[in-house]
Amino acid sequence: MTLYAQVEAALADEIGTHWQVGDRLPSEEDLIRRFGVSRITVRRAVQNLAGRGLVEIRRGVGTFVAAPRITQPLTALTGFVEDMHALGLEADAEVVSIRTQPASRSVADALAVPLGSDVTFVERVRRADGRALSFDQTYLIPEVGRRIAEDDLESTPIFTLLERTYGVPLVEATYRLSACLADADVAAALDVQVGDAVFRIERTTFTTDDRPVDYEILHYRGDAVTFETRLHRRPDTQ
Amino acid sequence: MTLYAQVEAALADEIGTHWQVGDRLPSEEDLIRRFGVSRITVRRAVQNLAGRGLVEIRRGVGTFVAAPRITQPLTALTGFVEDMHALGLEADAEVVSIRTQPASRSVADALAVPLGSDVTFVERVRRADGRALSFDQTYLIPEVGRRIAEDDLESTPIFTLLERTYGVPLVEATYRLSACLADADVAAALDVQVGDAVFRIERTTFTTDDRPVDYEILHYRGDAVTFETRLHRRPDTQ
Repeated sequence: MTLYAQVEAALADEIGTHWQVGDRLPSEEDLIRRFGVSRITVRRAVQNLAGRGLVEIRRGVGTFVAAPRITQPLTALTGFVEDMHALGLEADAEVVSIRTQPASRSVADALAVPLGSDVTFVERVRRADGRALSFDQTYLIPEVGRRIAEDDLESTPIFTLLERTYGVPLVEATYRLSACLADADVAAALDVQVGDAVFRIERTTFTTDDRPVDYEILHYRGDAVTFETRLHRRPDTQ
Repeated sequence: MTLYAQVEAALADEIGTHWQVGDRLPSEEDLIRRFGVSRITVRRAVQNLAGRGLVEIRRGVGTFVAAPRITQPLTALTGFVEDMHALGLEADAEVVSIRTQPASRSVADALAVPLGSDVTFVERVRRADGRALSFDQTYLIPEVGRRIAEDDLESTPIFTLLERTYGVPLVEATYRLSACLADADVAAALDVQVGDAVFRIERTTFTTDDRPVDYEILHYRGDAVTFETRLHRRPDTQ
């Protein structure tokens, strides 16, 4: 193992045992003395720990043991509140904005509505046990959006309103997954730095007869969430 | 629509029609004049285009129309070469390193081998039509690793060696998906900047009787790849 990998492994072990979430790591100077390695080696080890989500580097302040990542299944169409409850976490939503606006090209395509026609746009910060986890931008077809504007989105998830209150069954959704960097809006909503990693999910949810009702761009904190699935080998690929 | 969103939409339209991959966008000054907006508005529009992967900002050089993202299904266990061939792209692999090394805690857990026992570690850069797309770190159980060290990994994918040459059938794999930032090693391998977005897949592949054979950490260029799937609503969540 390279030197930095040894330092990284030793620190990761401490994080798993002696150190608690929020604890401050020893200073660079202390780590240099303790391991008898160079500053570059210590920095690289700590940066790798940050990349793995084990520590959080707050510039000018110090390096701290990070809250553990949330691992959630990506195997069925579920909403944020359902996901968090399955993990034993309290979920809540803060509505940042809600308005009617003309559908852009991508929104019109996703919701199968005319370009420039009215859609309802909702921005929400989703929290798990009080920690901002996802910034959701949701576009709804007008039939649904008009009603949702009058309901309480802070207390009731959109999926629940659709299925239970409006009688719009949800059947399936397409997911497009990518990694990007937080821009100013996303960083402010998620309480992270501009340029931090974001796990982006573009999701279109369909009701019966393949009709889209809900198009969302979900921005998850990259350092906080891992999605898990299990895929099978197809006989014809062998 | 906000001003920057209008500028962003207008530029996105041009990218889809008049401008080709590699074309340089007009300068900030030109865009300020053309749209009659502030520098902040132009910058924000261009940054959003970069976030969407439509343009690439090369600091001190200019902004260029980016190569289109590759969209690949995430619905079955497939290897890189299979994925690229399905998209009509030529795939190749450059072996950066291959060696025997002691299993760390996470590798030992994934491959169900004793901590510190020998595993084979392979690092490869995977290219699609000549463009570096993924940096793969692969750990193999010793029975397989010993043989693979003598085979030509530049010309033959590991999945093909396993299934066809060694007779080790692949059954399924667990996937852990996250977003992170490129560290120095990943950035060098993928020809991106440190701090660029990376789509990280941690995959353990199993043969019959649930035996793990292959544990990989795949680092995909965040600006180049989107993964796509379709998930169904479960009756019991409604």
